This record gives sequence, C-alpha cells and structure tokens, in this order.
Amino acid sequence: MDLKKYVRDIPDFPEEGISFKDITPLLQDANALASAADALFELIKNKKVDKVVGMESRGFFFAPLLATRLKAGFVPVRKRGKLPHQIISEPYALEYGTDVLEIHVDSILKGEKVLIHDDVLATGGTAKAVCKLIEKLGGEVIQCNFLLELKFLKGRDKLSGYAVEALIQY
Amino acid sequence: MDLKKYVRDIPDFPEEGISFKDITPLLQDANALASAADALFELIKNKKVDKVVGMESRGFFFAPLLATRLKAGFVPVRKRGKLPHQIISEPYALEYGTDVLEIHVDSILKGEKVLIHDDVLATGGTAKAVCKLIEKLGGEVIQCNFLLELKFLKGRDKLSGYAVEALIQY
Repeated sequence: MDLKKYVRDIPDFPEEGISFKDITPLLQDANALASAADALFELIKNKKVDKVVGMESRGFFFAPLLATRLKAGFVPVRKRGKLPHQIISEPYALEYGTDVLEIHVDSILKGEKVLIHDDVLATGGTAKAVCKLIEKLGGEVIQCNFLLELKFLKGRDKLSGYAVEALIQY
Repeated sequence: MDLKKYVRDIPDFPEEGISFKDITPLLQDANALASAADALFELIKNKKVDKVVGMESRGFFFAPLLATRLKAGFVPVRKRGKLPHQIISEPYALEYGTDVLEIHVDSILKGEKVLIHDDVLATGGTAKAVCKLIEKLGGEVIQCNFLLELKFLKGRDKLSGYAVEALIQY
C-alpha cells in the first residue's frame, strides 16, 4: 500500500513558508491505519523490546499499539508539567529558545531495551533529547522508529550511533 | 487482572486539593497494558464501528489501538490550533472560562458509526462536546468508552442518551 497517498501537504502551517505533512488522512482510513501499524511493527519485530517510549502528542498514536504487539510496556514522554510523578527532564530546541521534555523516573529500569517512536523525524532534536532521558535512567535505545522522515532536515545526522528507521520518506 | 493496582493516586496534582489518578504505571507494565487494551476492546467488539475518535492527549493512548482492532479509522480531536486542515469547533468548560475542541470536517462521513474513547470520564463535559462535533458532521455516536470513571463527578448524567462504558470505576 502506498501510504504517501494518505499524507496531505498543508501549505503555510503552522506558519508561513512551512509545508506541513498532515497524517490525519492516513489515520482516518481503516486500511491505511492498519497497514501503517503493521509496517511499523515489521521494522522492529525481531528485536527484544521492554518499553516503547512515545512523544507527546502525535507519538502517542502508534507507540502504545507497537508496545502491545511487542509485549512491551508503553512510556509517555511529555512536555513540561504534564507528568504527575517524579520526573527527570531534558532541554530540546524550539524555534525560539528551548523547553524541556519530561519522563517519569520509575518508567525505565536499568538495562531495559527501549524502542523510541514518534510520528515525524525532522531535525532529530526531540528524539535525541529522548535518547538522553532513557540513557540517564539506565535504559538502552535499540531503535528510533518514525512514521515519516523529512530527509532534507538531516535528523539521522543528529541521531548518529542509533538505529533509525522510518516508514515514509520525503 | 485487577487493573486498579496499576493506577496511582497523586495528591494535589495538578493543584492543591485534587487527587489525580495516574495511569502511567498501568501503561508501562506490559501485562497491564495488554489486559487493558483487550478489556476496552471487549466493551465494543460486537458493534460495527467506522471511526474511533480519541481526545488529545491521553485519549490517544488507546483510541488508535482500538481502531485497528475494530478495523476502523482513527480520528483525533484536538485543542485549539493543532489540526492543520479545515475544522469545526465546540466549546468545552475549563476550570476558569472555556476553550474549544476541534475536529477535521472531512474526518467523519454522514452516517458513520463512531466510538468515542478517552482515558478518564470526569464531569463528562469534554465527551459531550465531542458527541456534538460528531453529530454536526452527521456521524452517529454508538458508545463513549473510557479507561477510568470518576463516578462521584456524575459524568454519565451529562452523557444521558449515549451508551457509556468504563473499565475501572472509582
């Protein structure tokens, strides 16, 4: 199935000059959703995974689904102030300035094997911050897995040393 | 499996006097996550569903997963300004004042059967706003389905006329 047919370009969103890749047509089509879920699972299925970490908010679409298929737990990484228990945080770049991503300290155990999932690999800054959070907790990142990759932003360069997989590439 | 053992009370979160039900221990445990996903599916499995609608952000944990099991599409309802294409919106109550929830106009077709999923049924205000969005687009809400229900907030009263199911009740 050609999943690119279900990704819609939105000009000037969220601001002028940016062409946004809208994945909602893919999500809302039952066959495309099932096909994407199966294909994301194929990217990782032969590896042992203890936890799947997904990033707020669009990383939440597929990360829990991948976790159940891998018989792993799911761990959300969230923006500042959203997680209620004890957290560690890591800065990540916004367009202007920085903010932090947070993870619960009890979410990853030492030595656990972790799959990171997000919807889009752009500059790689968010995923790199999540790798650092997982490693601070003693986890091992075994793959960074994305629905969609914007290759011209060279996110793989920032994630060198990690296994990176993406289903749909631009 | 007693899923309540995996829900953690956080006193005074997000503010003093509120006891927050933290579901992250459930999500991060592989067996509890699988058990919750199976049980949520059991609540709806004999009904025909075309679309599963999940609310930002914690409704995204299980809604796409339920959609794949039901061979349905997944539609996100998001907070103001997050959806990139043409939307309709509906106000919902915040603690002080109101904000709006948004849905893409092309996400639900006339006559489609819709399952609404969110993590928590509290006052029911959010779910009621989502029912209105779906009905404005011509969809039929066949069930509102929650991981967790806070019965003392009487959300079912606000959702009278709709089928309401919740896995874990307090």
